[in-house]
Amino acid sequence: MGESIHGLKRSHKCTELSSSNIGEKVTVMGWVQKQRNLGSLVFIDLRDRTGIVQLVFTDKDGEMFDKAKTIRSEFVIATVGTVAARSPEAVNKKMATGEIEIIASELRVLSTSETPPMYIEENSEVNEQTRLKYRFLDLRRPDMQRNLILRHRVAKVARDYYDENAFLEIETPILIKSTPEGARDYLVPSRVHPGKFFALPQSPQLYKQILMVSGYDRYFQIAKCFRDEDLRADRQPEFTQIDIEMSFVNVDDVLEVNEGFVKKAFKEALNIDVETPFLRMPYAEAMERFGSDKPDIRFGMELINMSDMVANCGFKVFTDAVAMGGSVRAINAKGCAKFSRKEIDALVEVVKTYKAKGMAWISISPENEIKSSFAKFMSEDEMKSILDRAQAEPGDLICFVADKNNVVFDALGQLRLEIARKLDILNPDEFKFLWVTEFPLFEYDEDEQRWAAKHHPFTSPMDEDLEYLDTDPGRVRAKAYDMVLNGVELGGGSIRIHIQELQAKMFKMLGFSEEDANRKFGFLLEAFKYGTPPHGGMAFGLDRLVMLMAKKNSIRDVIAFPKVQNASCLMSNAPDVVDEKQIEELHINISKE
Amino acid sequence: MGESIHGLKRSHKCTELSSSNIGEKVTVMGWVQKQRNLGSLVFIDLRDRTGIVQLVFTDKDGEMFDKAKTIRSEFVIATVGTVAARSPEAVNKKMATGEIEIIASELRVLSTSETPPMYIEENSEVNEQTRLKYRFLDLRRPDMQRNLILRHRVAKVARDYYDENAFLEIETPILIKSTPEGARDYLVPSRVHPGKFFALPQSPQLYKQILMVSGYDRYFQIAKCFRDEDLRADRQPEFTQIDIEMSFVNVDDVLEVNEGFVKKAFKEALNIDVETPFLRMPYAEAMERFGSDKPDIRFGMELINMSDMVANCGFKVFTDAVAMGGSVRAINAKGCAKFSRKEIDALVEVVKTYKAKGMAWISISPENEIKSSFAKFMSEDEMKSILDRAQAEPGDLICFVADKNNVVFDALGQLRLEIARKLDILNPDEFKFLWVTEFPLFEYDEDEQRWAAKHHPFTSPMDEDLEYLDTDPGRVRAKAYDMVLNGVELGGGSIRIHIQELQAKMFKMLGFSEEDANRKFGFLLEAFKYGTPPHGGMAFGLDRLVMLMAKKNSIRDVIAFPKVQNASCLMSNAPDVVDEKQIEELHINISKE
Repeated sequence: MGESIHGLKRSHKCTELSSSNIGEKVTVMGWVQKQRNLGSLVFIDLRDRTGIVQLVFTDKDGEMFDKAKTIRSEFVIATVGTVAARSPEAVNKKMATGEIEIIASELRVLSTSETPPMYIEENSEVNEQTRLKYRFLDLRRPDMQRNLILRHRVAKVARDYYDENAFLEIETPILIKSTPEGARDYLVPSRVHPGKFFALPQSPQLYKQILMVSGYDRYFQIAKCFRDEDLRADRQPEFTQIDIEMSFVNVDDVLEVNEGFVKKAFKEALNIDVETPFLRMPYAEAMERFGSDKPDIRFGMELINMSDMVANCGFKVFTDAVAMGGSVRAINAKGCAKFSRKEIDALVEVVKTYKAKGMAWISISPENEIKSSFAKFMSEDEMKSILDRAQAEPGDLICFVADKNNVVFDALGQLRLEIARKLDILNPDEFKFLWVTEFPLFEYDEDEQRWAAKHHPFTSPMDEDLEYLDTDPGRVRAKAYDMVLNGVELGGGSIRIHIQELQAKMFKMLGFSEEDANRKFGFLLEAFKYGTPPHGGMAFGLDRLVMLMAKKNSIRDVIAFPKVQNASCLMSNAPDVVDEKQIEELHINISKE
Repeated sequence: MGESIHGLKRSHKCTELSSSNIGEKVTVMGWVQKQRNLGSLVFIDLRDRTGIVQLVFTDKDGEMFDKAKTIRSEFVIATVGTVAARSPEAVNKKMATGEIEIIASELRVLSTSETPPMYIEENSEVNEQTRLKYRFLDLRRPDMQRNLILRHRVAKVARDYYDENAFLEIETPILIKSTPEGARDYLVPSRVHPGKFFALPQSPQLYKQILMVSGYDRYFQIAKCFRDEDLRADRQPEFTQIDIEMSFVNVDDVLEVNEGFVKKAFKEALNIDVETPFLRMPYAEAMERFGSDKPDIRFGMELINMSDMVANCGFKVFTDAVAMGGSVRAINAKGCAKFSRKEIDALVEVVKTYKAKGMAWISISPENEIKSSFAKFMSEDEMKSILDRAQAEPGDLICFVADKNNVVFDALGQLRLEIARKLDILNPDEFKFLWVTEFPLFEYDEDEQRWAAKHHPFTSPMDEDLEYLDTDPGRVRAKAYDMVLNGVELGGGSIRIHIQELQAKMFKMLGFSEEDANRKFGFLLEAFKYGTPPHGGMAFGLDRLVMLMAKKNSIRDVIAFPKVQNASCLMSNAPDVVDEKQIEELHINISKE
């Protein structure tokens, strides 16, 4: 049975008390972190959202003392008492309230607790299944509370910042029309319209463009988005994005206003100064230097193109790659000559995962002894020029991949990261931002044998490249950009096409018939007929941003009630069976399989 | 074809320009509100989110002038020009920018427009079907833009206010488990779990209570909620609520913090001072005085109980009502003695709509001549005491309803409003708030012959009334409250039960077996086992709050993309058919009916 708080009013949260309150009569309420019964004294650590304060019960008050003795962990109690200084030897410097304690004069047990299946403590070692099943307890842990408080703060800063910059938060619908492009939609059967379905939005893309056509000038929204995909480690069926669109702007306007948000978020939520403007790096340069369109620039180990130097060497793997239009590139893993054969084999496995056929290498021992997987095919001069270009020094390990360019970039880009992790040189306290810009407008879809939009079909080509649309589509760059932090894509966007004729041409190149385009984007294309401003925008993954800010490895740690890999919720057991009547009303049956 | 803004940067929004900018070279961009061709001059009213500014093109620049002549309404243009004072006779005091104009030196047509199917102007007379089909144009109208800007502002104030008051905004899931209580759920078939479904939340109720159990102390969220109900005038399948929950609080704490929000919202968004604390009125008093649990207190015309006085009169309608435990009550419609017979008949129809069998009346002409529908049954003394209690004066019309109490309250409560509307005494500029408190905990469900929760099954009884739980459930009042503005319920909530035994008792009284309770609320009941703080909260309908603040009659006017009565969207044509493959993947079929 629990008692009422009738007549009591909490005067302070636990850690609002300090030496300056000594002598005050206070009322505190919260959960029992632990109780220690010392015979003539009972100590209770009382916990709330702010932290812990110590309560002391003495055997002078018999009835209350007896009650205090029965208190167990996670009971919810209210205590009236007087703040007192701890004796010097009892002072706990590690606690915010470590200099004081509360000498209790009244105790109410508001609610009891069964023994919890996990400890409520920092960095619990409990397995994630248990944590998610008992999420209501897991969420009591101080680190989870800090994560959600951080998330609240970042979202609040976003709203403050975009509001100050004349953006309007406008809610777009959750029950929308299915557009069979991109990922798989979640569907909602209509009860009123038999055989018809709503879809949950994968993003508010069409609606935010509509709002620009409607003259709202600057839109933003912290929006729930949904994708019915098989979940990877850091994906959720529903996720949250900070979604932005602006009119009468060019690429720089969008980058500038959005990096301003990130600067403010890091300052206000973490007191970290992020330098702006961020580095801008064209896609081509990012690939060339880091083998990635989301480079981690906390460290060097950049890619080095050796193709010209090895085009005619005696090593067929190299010459073939160059001859077929590919390349031979290397990274210089400083100080890694000491890697064992086994460690080098592991690196070979990494590049193979990313479709390279193998990895060639040269190691230079501290004593300047050169070993190599391909030395026998090379002249001494050739080796020397390679080592020169790699700026090789004793102790270095140079790793080579020779293949089609996209394989080379991918394999070496990933190898670079793997070596950095192995060397433990990725500083989690360093936040290195950049914009990757000038993405290709198209990518060639080998399966469908046609050009596909790299971003989406409304992305504008760069003015400078319009001339290549017909002659060399692969060369056309887009007004598209990604924000990258420490090798993670935080968000991306583009300037959209505002000219109908150009849009029609894009659809044609992408193989959309007019009918296709209308079926998929009908109301947006209709809207475009009545005066469309030049516009563009972007979207940030809020879950991922907060995860990086909290230095966590999973977005599940920054979402209050996440789902697991198979899209179910272990706490509520959703999804679940429903009443037959509910299904009937929706004019559907469950298929018999 | 449209031109690019390449090389141009907007320097001002339209109404940022005034006499203080005269002589400046500026760049403006927006939509053409109208174009007037005066032969040697072309005037264009250019519109953006802020309003309108006038552009002037002269025939000195032949090429640009020719282009200006081709411009039509809703074209999107960019103009570079010099701000100039208008000649005194051309000054337009009604326009914010009415003292100036821009003498154009460059014109780009960014996008053309077909002739729009509706005028883009204040308070369009276009029918709502057309407005909703062409919502992208409707949203260009200044009044719709003001509504959405107001909505943005109110939501922002909510976030500022609750953040300042230590509330955390925590996102709760949209894909949840169906709880077959309350309204009908929208369901989402699971692809991964054949035969199972998610539901969209009708409110975050269970999750916000979980967050209190998890120690978050103060939660709020501006949350999307979903109900698959047949829509009434002011309902939408998806709607938005400001959702709040607090721990370690009593009723007054909740009321105080939330009326503080309303005060701030009215001040910041409308510059209107709302007095706090709001009036608190127990439910019983609200019914007794206004016949409504959401009384419009902008005017008097309160209900007067005549039961004691007529219990033994000669009018059977009255005596019967009192004898069966009902009542006879009246309202004094001041100055309505002049109503024609036809007008009085219309009032009778009103009370009949609300299930009264009829309406008795007395009118007192300005010349003090008394007419009545029931005078013949009453003695002169009886009539006199009735008129005395009604404080009747010449010119008054007294209207009576005799029936069961709930019918009397409902009929007279509605009649009171109808007369006020007829007399046009409801001032839309007056905002009269109150809290209705101490709602009954139960209401008797005649169909099911059992007590049902008036609010929801977690609502706490008042401490004073616990003793009646077994003996007289109808008498038990709840720690429940509604916020009412001008006769509209803006929101409501309650203090929840935090004591397991009391919760078990409530479930029993409501006829829930333990199995029922677990099936419906399982994870919350499980959470309650591990230390539950006393907690309570409320929810505001954001759509409705903004609607009242904007003085609109429909929430569709404050929602960017609303749905119509049959839950469809006229702009996007959602819901719609989907690909057979999408349905198959969800392990469902469409039923053949």
